[in-house]
Amino acid sequence: MERVKPHIHRTPILTSGLLNQISECELYFKCENFQKMGAFKMRGATNAILNLSVEKKQKGVVTHSSGNFAQALSLSAKNLNVPAYIVMPDSAPEVKKAAVRTYDGKITECPSTLKDREETASKIQEETGATFIHPSNNLDVILGQGTAAMELLEDYPDLDYVVCPVGGGGLIAGTALTVKYFGNNCKCIGGEPMEADDAWRSLKSGKIETNESANTMADGLKTQLGDQNFPIILKHVDKIIRVTETEIKESLRLIWERMKIIVEPSSAVPLAAILKEKENFKNKKVGIIISGGNVDLSKLPF
Amino acid sequence: MERVKPHIHRTPILTSGLLNQISECELYFKCENFQKMGAFKMRGATNAILNLSVEKKQKGVVTHSSGNFAQALSLSAKNLNVPAYIVMPDSAPEVKKAAVRTYDGKITECPSTLKDREETASKIQEETGATFIHPSNNLDVILGQGTAAMELLEDYPDLDYVVCPVGGGGLIAGTALTVKYFGNNCKCIGGEPMEADDAWRSLKSGKIETNESANTMADGLKTQLGDQNFPIILKHVDKIIRVTETEIKESLRLIWERMKIIVEPSSAVPLAAILKEKENFKNKKVGIIISGGNVDLSKLPF
Repeated sequence: MERVKPHIHRTPILTSGLLNQISECELYFKCENFQKMGAFKMRGATNAILNLSVEKKQKGVVTHSSGNFAQALSLSAKNLNVPAYIVMPDSAPEVKKAAVRTYDGKITECPSTLKDREETASKIQEETGATFIHPSNNLDVILGQGTAAMELLEDYPDLDYVVCPVGGGGLIAGTALTVKYFGNNCKCIGGEPMEADDAWRSLKSGKIETNESANTMADGLKTQLGDQNFPIILKHVDKIIRVTETEIKESLRLIWERMKIIVEPSSAVPLAAILKEKENFKNKKVGIIISGGNVDLSKLPF
Repeated sequence: MERVKPHIHRTPILTSGLLNQISECELYFKCENFQKMGAFKMRGATNAILNLSVEKKQKGVVTHSSGNFAQALSLSAKNLNVPAYIVMPDSAPEVKKAAVRTYDGKITECPSTLKDREETASKIQEETGATFIHPSNNLDVILGQGTAAMELLEDYPDLDYVVCPVGGGGLIAGTALTVKYFGNNCKCIGGEPMEADDAWRSLKSGKIETNESANTMADGLKTQLGDQNFPIILKHVDKIIRVTETEIKESLRLIWERMKIIVEPSSAVPLAAILKEKENFKNKKVGIIISGGNVDLSKLPF
């Protein structure tokens, strides 16, 4: 926590009288959309790099991601003077590639299957000696992501719940660890799109499930859990609430219109989950992790 | 100032490393988009009502406005238990009428000419004994609007400039008074759309000029100055910088994408003005009043 601090923003925690009224509970929004590069991923990436030995830092880091983690690893590597190799599917939007380049990430393109991505990353590892950092299935990344909930609890130690979105599992695993060890009888709840409910099914079956399709506007949440974060989630997450696309869109609009902040669809999933099971949160103090704010303004769902 | 405080939000002041880099100065954004009902107008409306005698309060207030002031007067009147009569052009969008109704404002519709609006407001005054509160040409409103800059200077006493948009003149007159009397050699600068540059022309000619047309996306800035605020502006505003629609749109996009906050086009005018005359602001500390965040998400200029 102390180690990551100088390299990230302590993001503001916003409240909204109107959303408290609608949800009938006290909501505390931890605004990682205001984080460097616009998402919480900056925390995990920074922590993972800081944990490398001096020699490993010199050889650099490599990851495969088409989303926020590609930018996060590039920027935190740049800040810490470490080379970053980013494997991106050749189908990734130009705007995302451009963002990685802004942060001096070295892009290698490959076909978009997981197999191709993994092979390309392995090849770069061999050639450069760079360390592979998985976007969510890496303990240092998980602990880094947990610092957002830590800051929430520092300011509001008596939260009853912290709710966050579930994608690859890094954020919720880190949040769950923080909430269990530093909260005051606080519970960690996940929000997940019905259209990509692999984590909900994984909690039910006790093994990592996958999504056959993932037709959700919450595009950060299409990925599946991993063997590092799943045991933590299984042990420390109290519940996962699934929400429909309509529910996500409604909550997204509430946040944009009422709070006047720009958040990505994934960030609206926790509020949608709370509104869906309102009676369980009634009159409670509830922290929400707003995961990020990187959206394409020309492709809004409104 | 002290009187208004309990009834409004002390809005946050945000900064952005990236926008500082682009503008080559230190920017401090006073975020009135996070104000109650989403705009600074809440300050002036509240101050104007608080200044009425007990009897006048009982009889209520009346204004004509199709924009933020209609909502601001309705909400502050509701908060202070005062009836509010709002004259709106029958052409006003349903969403704006609905917002006024949410705050219990009593709407009277009329044709959209200024003459019709004024006559309808006069009639309501006669019938109800309500006090007419002009959205910008009223000294109590002007002083109320000045509290935003006051809060800026409380937190950053050594600002070199405060830049705000110019519409009807209430905000800039209040800001200029605050800056002159409470700033430390601070200057007040206005930003105005080229397409509605009545205030720029008024400063040149020394008399209140009007707009023949006002074809600007900054729809809060189409109105003209009044006899109460113009003398203050003439005396205390150092300069008005005019910006094109393209410049407004670019700055709007910068604020949305980089700061992740939702602001209305009028709020982007000060940043556009600073970027236009960059050399004058170089390395200075510059406050910006973000006037509001009430936008129709289905009609974005992106």
